[in-house]
Amino acid sequence: MTASVRIGLLGMGNVGGALVELLQEQHSDIAALTGLDLAITRIAVRDASKPRGELYGAELTDNVAAVIDADDVDLVVELVGGVDLARDWVARSLQAGKSVVTGNKALLAAHGRELMDLAGEHNVELLFEASVAGGIPLMRALQKSLRGEPIERVMGIVNGTTNYMLSKMTEDGADYAEVLAEAQALGYAEADPTADVEGHDAQAKAAIIASVAFGASVTDADVPVQGISGVTAEDIANAARLGYVIKLLAVVERSGDEVAARVHPTMVPTSHPLATVRGSFNAVFIEGGAVGDLMLYGRGAGGRPTASAVLGDVIEAATSVSHGTVRRLPPMADARLRAPEAAMSAFYLDLSVEDRPGVLAEVAGVFGANGVSIRSMEQQGLGAEASIAFITHEATERDMAATLEKLNALPSVNRVGAQYRVIGG
Amino acid sequence: MTASVRIGLLGMGNVGGALVELLQEQHSDIAALTGLDLAITRIAVRDASKPRGELYGAELTDNVAAVIDADDVDLVVELVGGVDLARDWVARSLQAGKSVVTGNKALLAAHGRELMDLAGEHNVELLFEASVAGGIPLMRALQKSLRGEPIERVMGIVNGTTNYMLSKMTEDGADYAEVLAEAQALGYAEADPTADVEGHDAQAKAAIIASVAFGASVTDADVPVQGISGVTAEDIANAARLGYVIKLLAVVERSGDEVAARVHPTMVPTSHPLATVRGSFNAVFIEGGAVGDLMLYGRGAGGRPTASAVLGDVIEAATSVSHGTVRRLPPMADARLRAPEAAMSAFYLDLSVEDRPGVLAEVAGVFGANGVSIRSMEQQGLGAEASIAFITHEATERDMAATLEKLNALPSVNRVGAQYRVIGG
Repeated sequence: MTASVRIGLLGMGNVGGALVELLQEQHSDIAALTGLDLAITRIAVRDASKPRGELYGAELTDNVAAVIDADDVDLVVELVGGVDLARDWVARSLQAGKSVVTGNKALLAAHGRELMDLAGEHNVELLFEASVAGGIPLMRALQKSLRGEPIERVMGIVNGTTNYMLSKMTEDGADYAEVLAEAQALGYAEADPTADVEGHDAQAKAAIIASVAFGASVTDADVPVQGISGVTAEDIANAARLGYVIKLLAVVERSGDEVAARVHPTMVPTSHPLATVRGSFNAVFIEGGAVGDLMLYGRGAGGRPTASAVLGDVIEAATSVSHGTVRRLPPMADARLRAPEAAMSAFYLDLSVEDRPGVLAEVAGVFGANGVSIRSMEQQGLGAEASIAFITHEATERDMAATLEKLNALPSVNRVGAQYRVIGG
Repeated sequence: MTASVRIGLLGMGNVGGALVELLQEQHSDIAALTGLDLAITRIAVRDASKPRGELYGAELTDNVAAVIDADDVDLVVELVGGVDLARDWVARSLQAGKSVVTGNKALLAAHGRELMDLAGEHNVELLFEASVAGGIPLMRALQKSLRGEPIERVMGIVNGTTNYMLSKMTEDGADYAEVLAEAQALGYAEADPTADVEGHDAQAKAAIIASVAFGASVTDADVPVQGISGVTAEDIANAARLGYVIKLLAVVERSGDEVAARVHPTMVPTSHPLATVRGSFNAVFIEGGAVGDLMLYGRGAGGRPTASAVLGDVIEAATSVSHGTVRRLPPMADARLRAPEAAMSAFYLDLSVEDRPGVLAEVAGVFGANGVSIRSMEQQGLGAEASIAFITHEATERDMAATLEKLNALPSVNRVGAQYRVIGG
């Protein structure tokens, strides 16, 4: 006995096209395993006259509303991207009593809570596994498997372009500019790479992870971000000497009732599982109070991996549609956002200082006076070239900023060099 | 608005005790996030007079049937272990219309299909995330996220004891016997280590993974198994020289309509993500036709990690109970088991041969005559100590067995040494 569920697809780019193909390939296996007869009946695209691949019977239109409202569309898959129009379309679908599957991270980072609440009101589902870390089943792990878990922290390598670039810099000793040019030539980075290299893509994903992991209402605007454009080959070499690699991490953590989220290049010990994630792969490392350390690793982007995540959601939503058994997520808890200056990290700091007795005590005194405690320090280089690499214990952003201000004002400090946040092993 | 769901717990060992504590700690967070008021009302143990920790109001009994049948038990958590009695209890619970959460791998490996079908007949759920790889959300990934994915192969490090032992042998160059004694002293290995070191624990898990990943009906008796008791420090050193580490893998794969499952020590390239899984951690590597490579990594055992997986299942089942919306899994497809001798692998083979011209051609000829093609060969050692390490392309177990028989009969072959299956990078 199979139940027919008809899908309206908005957008037929890279992921949409892959979804059409994947659903066709897997149609009979899905029917055998789930009892669902899934078909894409309508597809909305910007330009319906443009030649397309095989559509397997779906009707093509440039009228999005006609797809959403069609009687032969039971659920809507939104793969258009963008925020404002997508928000209207998703809201209209939910209001029409149709569950929505979307991979639109920008939309969720800006309006996730509002849309989840709307889905709840209309007793339909809003699923978005594909919006973070492509084919990696992170959302389902957080929403289902770890529902009862006291999650303490989630750290993710969630942008493949920057991980590819940092991996190349680490493995080849190459410069940032060189690696960026190569990544652009290979199509791994876009002509305007800002969204990736300045961390905005990871920032949106951090907001979604924080919302789902902690039931907090976090938007991308709430997430302090620093990208990788300031990372140098020298920084990477210095980190390596100390046993670290530099990764761009989205970090989301809870401390009491407060939630903190941020994105920055981070020194990760080489023995940490995240350090082994190379090239354009993504991985998300979860620290739970009961489950311990957990890592999910896989392809974070690409048409087929992302389409696979969309299809998993489609099958889940279609099962609900066919059983008439939608599961409402309750409204999210109101975990408070921690003020950015109260967030805590360990820090790496590279200082070039005058080479005379007493300077070290002077510098160490500045850390101490500002409540920052030093875990290790190590001289690198010799004579006028000498610098000292400090790694601190955990300190607040506020205390660290005050320390830096005082260090910069110190006559014996020639230069405050690279600064990185550091995670433990 | 909260819905009350009352739990009957069978067994209060390591995991059961951790579940009682975890549920107590997380009760209010779970209520806030899911609207569920979860309480363990009854607990069945072998000896109810033995002193226990705090039970938070649960009633203790040695009468299992009384727990299953109690009106104030809505769902049953089975953490007793064993096969025959557990089968009766789980069946009785399902027949009474109560969903069951279990972490009992032996039960599922022997009677999984029968019990899943029984759950379907009675319109209740049977969830078993904790049965394979403890806190790692593998079952949910396979059953939900990857439902529409053309999964090609699943390879798992699913036994922490043997991974701990192999990691120690690799890192310290230690002998098998030495590492086993140490693992026993630390409590990582049992006094009778057979179930772990001979691969029977991994064998049961391979059967469950095959059933869930491919919808096949596979029991542990269907899975050929080889443990790690024959792995020597020399084998590990030889593998390292060629760029491999030795891991005990449960391998489950599909080829056309056929499914193959097996457990054996395997040479894994050091660049493969599975090679980086050290100590007692577990990891499962999934190769999907669309999603690409995916790995889930975490704690495979231990009271709290396993209790976390049980609690995730309890929340899912309790949500179904409270909504009255049980999702039936359709009956499993009948994927056929591939005959063990038709299963394919690449092989590593260590041969000690006479040191005279023409021997290599003779030996290589035996591989070729039996349809096994050589990918690489490398001499190790010198003179009478010399041996040749061969790595083949993929070949069937049948062809490889024939090759070995012929090699053993060859006068110029002094000794056929270590043999390992090998996976690609």
